[in-house]
Amino acid sequence: MRIAYQGEPGAYSEAAALAYDAEGTPEPCRSFEDVFAAVSSGAAARGILPMENTIGGTIHRNYDLLVEHELPIVGEVQLKVDHCLLALPGVTLDEIKVVHSHPQALAQCERFLRGLPNVQIEAVYDTAGGAKLIREQQLRGHAAIASIRAAEVFELDVLHKGVQDFENNITRFCVIARQAITEGADKTSIVFALPSEPGTLFRALSSFALRGIDLTKLESRPMRGRPWEYLFYVDLGAGRSDVRCGRAIVHLAESARWVKTLGSYARWNEASIKAGVGEGSVDVSITSS
Amino acid sequence: MRIAYQGEPGAYSEAAALAYDAEGTPEPCRSFEDVFAAVSSGAAARGILPMENTIGGTIHRNYDLLVEHELPIVGEVQLKVDHCLLALPGVTLDEIKVVHSHPQALAQCERFLRGLPNVQIEAVYDTAGGAKLIREQQLRGHAAIASIRAAEVFELDVLHKGVQDFENNITRFCVIARQAITEGADKTSIVFALPSEPGTLFRALSSFALRGIDLTKLESRPMRGRPWEYLFYVDLGAGRSDVRCGRAIVHLAESARWVKTLGSYARWNEASIKAGVGEGSVDVSITSS
Repeated sequence: MRIAYQGEPGAYSEAAALAYDAEGTPEPCRSFEDVFAAVSSGAAARGILPMENTIGGTIHRNYDLLVEHELPIVGEVQLKVDHCLLALPGVTLDEIKVVHSHPQALAQCERFLRGLPNVQIEAVYDTAGGAKLIREQQLRGHAAIASIRAAEVFELDVLHKGVQDFENNITRFCVIARQAITEGADKTSIVFALPSEPGTLFRALSSFALRGIDLTKLESRPMRGRPWEYLFYVDLGAGRSDVRCGRAIVHLAESARWVKTLGSYARWNEASIKAGVGEGSVDVSITSS
Repeated sequence: MRIAYQGEPGAYSEAAALAYDAEGTPEPCRSFEDVFAAVSSGAAARGILPMENTIGGTIHRNYDLLVEHELPIVGEVQLKVDHCLLALPGVTLDEIKVVHSHPQALAQCERFLRGLPNVQIEAVYDTAGGAKLIREQQLRGHAAIASIRAAEVFELDVLHKGVQDFENNITRFCVIARQAITEGADKTSIVFALPSEPGTLFRALSSFALRGIDLTKLESRPMRGRPWEYLFYVDLGAGRSDVRCGRAIVHLAESARWVKTLGSYARWNEASIKAGVGEGSVDVSITSS
């Protein structure tokens, strides 16, 4: 199964594609739009998109793209962002004079970097790019901060694991496909717009509360250019085929300006996916047809 | 008034500090923690922190810092992120062979950059850093993507304004101080934690809905490490001294694990601030004492 992702080989999105399907073939794309185009055209069976990070927040742009396109979410992946210090084989930590990485990764490892004396910090376009540079130009005395996957791709040694300053740096990705897969789904992502009036949200949420449906994500976002409307991103703890979920969405539609179901899928559970239970296994049987 | 911000002169946070108080003295800091330290110690009267961006989402790290520290929010600024292409005076667009900027800015200007033929793209640590490099090394044939403020700081020409691909790229900043200022406040930011049980949020929001208080932001965030608790960021459309607001927070505290008021302040309104009405003018009288 081809899985389109944004970035270069060795990027965290590529690692997420492999966490989703270890047998899959990740296909690098230049932009998020290109990921949608690859899935739309059939060039890839799946696309994988980062949606939110526990440090950095929600990537609104990808929500916009999900709303604009008609490609349903069919799965999710949660990936721990575990930055590693990588260097050419045989190079030791005290030989390192320059560290390359993406500015966001450098910022997330600031305390670690301050602890390395006399080291020059250089920013590169993506984390995997720094690793690639060291391999291609055989830069001894240089290290990159990137994923453990980048170490594999560019045959570098891992000098240090977990060099990030904050624990619990996790990115949640969603997996998109041309067709919905509702089998085994126990989570549904929806987006809706409400007029900005006191109590509107309270009434909208009653659709779920009255049916005992838990919300695992709820986020409001002002719609720029439409000053009196708000968008809401909501993840429901129920699959779309659960009768309560269907009724709740119909009920919500009575007060919302519009509602869009982005997809219904099995919630991420590393253990169950690895055991071949849930969406991971469903995928394989469907895409092999 | 000294206003601490994270970044270098010419950074968007510096522009936000000047939008907050055109007479203020922005003080660059290395990290967000250093902004808090500068305000705590009295080295700066105010600190300014980016909280959310319309494309990139909420910066959870700064919410964490606001919860950890006892420095109230006393104001907010909304700043349009308007990327400009900057070069040395006299240089024309067709002379440009290299463009420098922060990877996030480069990504936000991808369509514009693709339209420039045979131009090499180089990533730098921050947007202002690219402008600084061109000025210091007198790089003709090079351009930087940065704020119009960076053009002023480094005496560069603006070759193009608004080179970002997406309209409505706005960052909301909050202003922190050592002491709360409730005069003129019509907005209150709170954070609270709820147990993850169906209907808990609905009950919590009833505190506001029953009193006709509008919510201008609502965002849930799972508390990593405490799997059954959720954090909620809520902005209320009422000042803390509004009796409805006080009662609603007391009511909320009945069902929440904990509630923290981050601050009460005047909502951002460019026109009123410029006219000397609202928090901007209150500030000046307080810090001059």
